Amino acid sequence: MSKNRVGLYPGTFDPITLGHYDIIKRASKLVDTLVIGVAMNPGKNPLFTVEERVSMVAKMTEEFPGTNFVVKPFNNLLMHFAEEVGAAIIIRGLRAVSDFEYEFQMVGMNRRLNSEIETVFLMASDQHQFIASSLVKEIALLNGDITKFVSATTAKKIAERVTEIHNRT
Amino acid sequence: MSKNRVGLYPGTFDPITLGHYDIIKRASKLVDTLVIGVAMNPGKNPLFTVEERVSMVAKMTEEFPGTNFVVKPFNNLLMHFAEEVGAAIIIRGLRAVSDFEYEFQMVGMNRRLNSEIETVFLMASDQHQFIASSLVKEIALLNGDITKFVSATTAKKIAERVTEIHNRT
Amino acid sequence: MSKNRVGLYPGTFDPITLGHYDIIKRASKLVDTLVIGVAMNPGKNPLFTVEERVSMVAKMTEEFPGTNFVVKPFNNLLMHFAEEVGAAIIIRGLRAVSDFEYEFQMVGMNRRLNSEIETVFLMASDQHQFIASSLVKEIALLNGDITKFVSATTAKKIAERVTEIHNRT
Amino acid sequence: MSKNRVGLYPGTFDPITLGHYDIIKRASKLVDTLVIGVAMNPGKNPLFTVEERVSMVAKMTEEFPGTNFVVKPFNNLLMHFAEEVGAAIIIRGLRAVSDFEYEFQMVGMNRRLNSEIETVFLMASDQHQFIASSLVKEIALLNGDITKFVSATTAKKIAERVTEIHNRT
Amino acid sequence: MSKNRVGLYPGTFDPITLGHYDIIKRASKLVDTLVIGVAMNPGKNPLFTVEERVSMVAKMTEEFPGTNFVVKPFNNLLMHFAEEVGAAIIIRGLRAVSDFEYEFQMVGMNRRLNSEIETVFLMASDQHQFIASSLVKEIALLNGDITKFVSATTAKKIAERVTEIHNRT
Amino acid sequence: MSKNRVGLYPGTFDPITLGHYDIIKRASKLVDTLVIGVAMNPGKNPLFTVEERVSMVAKMTEEFPGTNFVVKPFNNLLMHFAEEVGAAIIIRGLRAVSDFEYEFQMVGMNRRLNSEIETVFLMASDQHQFIASSLVKEIALLNGDITKFVSATTAKKIAERVTEIHNRT
Repeated sequence: MSKNRVGLYPGTFDPITLGHYDIIKRASKLVDTLVIGVAMNPGKNPLFTVEERVSMVAKMTEEFPGTNFVVKPFNNLLMHFAEEVGAAIIIRGLRAVSDFEYEFQMVGMNRRLNSEIETVFLMASDQHQFIASSLVKEIALLNGDITKFVSATTAKKIAERVTEIHNRT
Repeated sequence: MSKNRVGLYPGTFDPITLGHYDIIKRASKLVDTLVIGVAMNPGKNPLFTVEERVSMVAKMTEEFPGTNFVVKPFNNLLMHFAEEVGAAIIIRGLRAVSDFEYEFQMVGMNRRLNSEIETVFLMASDQHQFIASSLVKEIALLNGDITKFVSATTAKKIAERVTEIHNRT
Repeated sequence: MSKNRVGLYPGTFDPITLGHYDIIKRASKLVDTLVIGVAMNPGKNPLFTVEERVSMVAKMTEEFPGTNFVVKPFNNLLMHFAEEVGAAIIIRGLRAVSDFEYEFQMVGMNRRLNSEIETVFLMASDQHQFIASSLVKEIALLNGDITKFVSATTAKKIAERVTEIHNRT
Repeated sequence: MSKNRVGLYPGTFDPITLGHYDIIKRASKLVDTLVIGVAMNPGKNPLFTVEERVSMVAKMTEEFPGTNFVVKPFNNLLMHFAEEVGAAIIIRGLRAVSDFEYEFQMVGMNRRLNSEIETVFLMASDQHQFIASSLVKEIALLNGDITKFVSATTAKKIAERVTEIHNRT
Repeated sequence: MSKNRVGLYPGTFDPITLGHYDIIKRASKLVDTLVIGVAMNPGKNPLFTVEERVSMVAKMTEEFPGTNFVVKPFNNLLMHFAEEVGAAIIIRGLRAVSDFEYEFQMVGMNRRLNSEIETVFLMASDQHQFIASSLVKEIALLNGDITKFVSATTAKKIAERVTEIHNRT
Repeated sequence: MSKNRVGLYPGTFDPITLGHYDIIKRASKLVDTLVIGVAMNPGKNPLFTVEERVSMVAKMTEEFPGTNFVVKPFNNLLMHFAEEVGAAIIIRGLRAVSDFEYEFQMVGMNRRLNSEIETVFLMASDQHQFIASSLVKEIALLNGDITKFVSATTAKKIAERVTEIHNRT
């Protein structure tokens, strides 16, 4: 009765953190193919373009050779994108009560859009619970040390981008 | 790369509600075999014996002929029971913030006991979000109507038990 | 189009605190008749008998001569009691997030029992937000000063009861 | 002792959802006159002008012929508007813990501005708990189906507005 | 073994409220020197310049002659600023669950930046729990009475600024 | 202006966990003398007697030779005990939202009992956030491995006690 299960892990990944990495690693055991959907989110004024973010995520996922990963950008409704990629499961990380409330609301609406697609939640590991991309960016822009929150490759790319921004102004 | 995934959905199920039923139905799509573990919990002074609860759960699961269900009582540590039945995934329902907090704590401790077993969470459907076994029992003991919270078969069994209790006192 | 609105404010009132008093005063403006329902709750092992509690609540409500108060004990399902006294509105105080969650669950179940009866919530005034009957009892039993949490009459009755209990053991 | 009670239900209603509609229907039983105050909120860059929103709300309330409804725009302080319309009660819906916290803070400040006006809360019905105007707009702008969250008339108006916006860009 | 303890209480103070004042008064008893750090936060588009805010905070602290206060603006990373001023303790006020969650996340990140600096939390006094600078500004801009939320001097300065803003537009 | 600050860290410590140990270590830097108050709590039916718990806590604190520790049992009101030991500061750990709510309520009541004594909170380190004495006991009684949650010495004492209990029944 084994099925080929496709899971979707969506996010902005601006930048991808060690917290995202942990969820990806754990989610990869739950499904046969894991699509990592990188939301374009132009309205959020991201630090990295969607192409840069897709490439940074792809680099990180190369470390799991056994799993079937697909990293894809998307700009449409999450449920439409899930249908496009054939995902039966959407995977989300939960760090805090505020995450829980937002996700509860999203699940309620998404279930009305397509009740066949199930959303499952993984609790952030305790050592990653406090890592938020937005805070990582804030610390980097104020010249703080972010090497405990992102991979070495990502930290280097952020440092380059921050230097560009500081030179611009 | 398809694997035979075993999931474990643990609970006291005293009694099994429509909320549990909904989680079971949805969880059954995530795994190949779903073990429903019925915790004995003698300290909680349950309304039904563990044998009665196993039989009530089993009755309900007969409605999903396609899935591989196993209903089993357990009285040991959840993580030990998960290891015994070969579950790689523990499935839990989340209804409210207080659930979230308790589960967060449990996941933190369980991960230290066996980091290979992953816990995934499903959000209760909105119409089942408020259903708690403890409240169902309370309402039944005060002669309230519980037919919107449990299946007809379960409601009948509860009514019989409540009559026994009222006759006893 | 004015109607004679009956409201029900239920509680254990063991003992009635200044927080309860504040909610009663404010609730009395929302309805034409306010029934204060005193839950017997024998399982909770209350400090005062239900008759004592009814009398303590009645004493406090004498201070609002203009309103139509009825203080009544009850031992059945809240929704059945509301129907008995003809209440269209149940009034509950909210102090904290944990209250909110519990009440949310109760409202969901009660709505299934009788969707015609509406539950409305009043936020505790900030200076009463932290007052809980259970803590008042705990402080009193440890000989702490409770005069800032209950009325002078109630404080005297609690002191007498605590002395009785300490003499007994 | 019956009084003519005026209640105020304020909101931005951009757009009015089935969740708002449910609260209006239930609030209308608590008071003799229900003023629905439509906040202009120009800073929030609404999808519909305040005139359009007033008209959409008015259309929906025509379904309750027995009640005394008044739909009015406002741009001043909520407590000043409540005084203007003679409201003794402000009615608010509560969906989640985050709502609770925000409302708690508002009630605390508003009580300092006018302690005679009471704020009462209704819990969102479970099937409407997750509906937020902001998410409805987001889904509509991404061409998702919103007919389960708003009335047919409102859905049509939103579709027209979204087409205008997409044509503009 | 007595040490000269330096504490840092950071904030935007736009404007300083009676809630901030209460925390400052209580924090001053915990340390030997209390540095009040005024974050520039140009991105937040503050009502008052950082110089104006420093001066308003300084004025308020003159009321505690016995304590060693230092009011200083800062525009760098909080942990870097704490190191600069030699603070071993960062003091933060907690009003609500949402504060708790945000602070928990900040503490987690800050501990990675410098684990030697400890963050301690004081619960807001109940009568100040609902006071937020952002709401004070909103009320002031809508000509509401803010004299219960800020000192008389601060209220006067806000009134002047609001008049300037209203004249400008 | 240096003062000799006495802090009080109260708890049941049944058993003392690595989470308590972490708070003690951090609290010791905030005060000159740290009194660790071990609540007798006979009602809670503890695993260890108060004398055993005092001795287990004392053993753990011997690792901080530089600080002035006092480990003392108490059975009276926390605020009375704080007055007895001359504590100006009560120190509490915060792990989760539910802790926050309970503590908020306690602080509100305690402030009415003695407003001169300040309560300060430390956030649990992320790796200790999920450790609760009650869960440690539960795991131990079910023969789970608790060596990641308590010190080696404590783990040994718990193992002995659990064996005694299992032999008894």
